[in-house]
Amino acid sequence: STRMSVVASFVQQGKKIVAIGRNYSEHAKELNNAVPKEPIIFLKPTTSYVASGGNVEIPRGILAHYEVELGVVIGKRGRDIPLSDAESYVAGYALAVDMTARNLQEELKAKRLPWTVAKGFDTFTPISSYISKDSVADAANLSLTLRVNGAVKQDGNTKDMIFSIPKLIEHISTIMTLEEGDLILTGTPSGVGPVVPGDKVECTLKDSTGKQLATLDFAAVQREGGYEY
Amino acid sequence: STRMSVVASFVQQGKKIVAIGRNYSEHAKELNNAVPKEPIIFLKPTTSYVASGGNVEIPRGILAHYEVELGVVIGKRGRDIPLSDAESYVAGYALAVDMTARNLQEELKAKRLPWTVAKGFDTFTPISSYISKDSVADAANLSLTLRVNGAVKQDGNTKDMIFSIPKLIEHISTIMTLEEGDLILTGTPSGVGPVVPGDKVECTLKDSTGKQLATLDFAAVQREGGYEY
Ligand SMILES: [Mg+2]
Ligand SMILES: [Mg+2]
Ligand SMILES: [Mg+2]
Repeated sequence: STRMSVVASFVQQGKKIVAIGRNYSEHAKELNNAVPKEPIIFLKPTTSYVASGGNVEIPRGILAHYEVELGVVIGKRGRDIPLSDAESYVAGYALAVDMTARNLQEELKAKRLPWTVAKGFDTFTPISSYISKDSVADAANLSLTLRVNGAVKQDGNTKDMIFSIPKLIEHISTIMTLEEGDLILTGTPSGVGPVVPGDKVECTLKDSTGKQLATLDFAAVQREGGYEY
Repeated sequence: STRMSVVASFVQQGKKIVAIGRNYSEHAKELNNAVPKEPIIFLKPTTSYVASGGNVEIPRGILAHYEVELGVVIGKRGRDIPLSDAESYVAGYALAVDMTARNLQEELKAKRLPWTVAKGFDTFTPISSYISKDSVADAANLSLTLRVNGAVKQDGNTKDMIFSIPKLIEHISTIMTLEEGDLILTGTPSGVGPVVPGDKVECTLKDSTGKQLATLDFAAVQREGGYEY
């Protein structure tokens, strides 16, 4: 159906990526940030998607950090979605990395400016294949791992989210209408760190039985031309 | 053609709104901000569009400010667009208001958090009809006015932009690919101020001969339900 094709091809057809900051308390602590009282929200452009197997291009002068995250693909348009109904707006999931230009982000924060550029470079959202909701028994108990050059750097579980997926959907939809094919990036567990050109990054998403739901891998390369920090 | 329909219906079909902050020095000064050395960039979701004649819904507790701006509609996909070629990426224009939740924005800035929520509420980007490029002799010499309840509050000219439209296209495209139907909001001249429920806002865009290129009007209403500040 048309509906299935929009959500399965959310990378091409979706309009927005709504990302959540500091949604795991251990990660908030590692960056010396307070645990938030309401979700921290920012947007990434869909031009930042790159499919698994591709290259993340790091602009000159940028210190890039990985943040492995569960992505939630929205299945239908909604505004002011009640918590009790939020689950019905989920079409499926994806495994993603919210690449972040950490040195630029720190400067922007110090100047009280938007994070957009630090989060929005082309290729700064590596993304797995679409995972349909049917294959996920409990999205609140999935393990996320990220390895750099074979070494485990992040090993978290979605059960440690501060704001649950239904709570995020409820909250975001009081601010901005959610649409079919939108992606919510639900925040990263602890262990974030640098990726430099030449690094290979591999991520997995598994359920509580150990079944692998998705993998995501990419190579970091130096961006030629374009932005220079 | 298909191409014409995407740009003419950028409100429905475009994927992103790339907004520029402090692009007129008088406005930077009125908010006690430094004049930026490179463009300040943030994203608004396309779900924030509302057509001229509609209502801007102000969430409870929000102090909303108007910012009248020239919007530039992108006509074709591009990355690392050279300054000399930037003009060919412009399909047309629109008159817009970048509604801003000023009290929330000030809090987010103080906490060094993204501006996204303060800029991204549904109906926070009132937008005129599409203006094709053919009807605009010189986009760098257009007058923008905004009236609240009949009183002129903003009366600026695009010749006072700090970063020109070609420069913005060049710069943004070094960060994120621009796509057909994307809108660039080019910043607001001085005179920003509050809009409260019950206010009527009217904006005009005119060229240097006085020819009216677009009008935009909306009513401010109290948002029922949804987000509360
Ligand atoms: Mg993140
Ligand atoms: Mg932002
Ligand atoms: Mg503005």
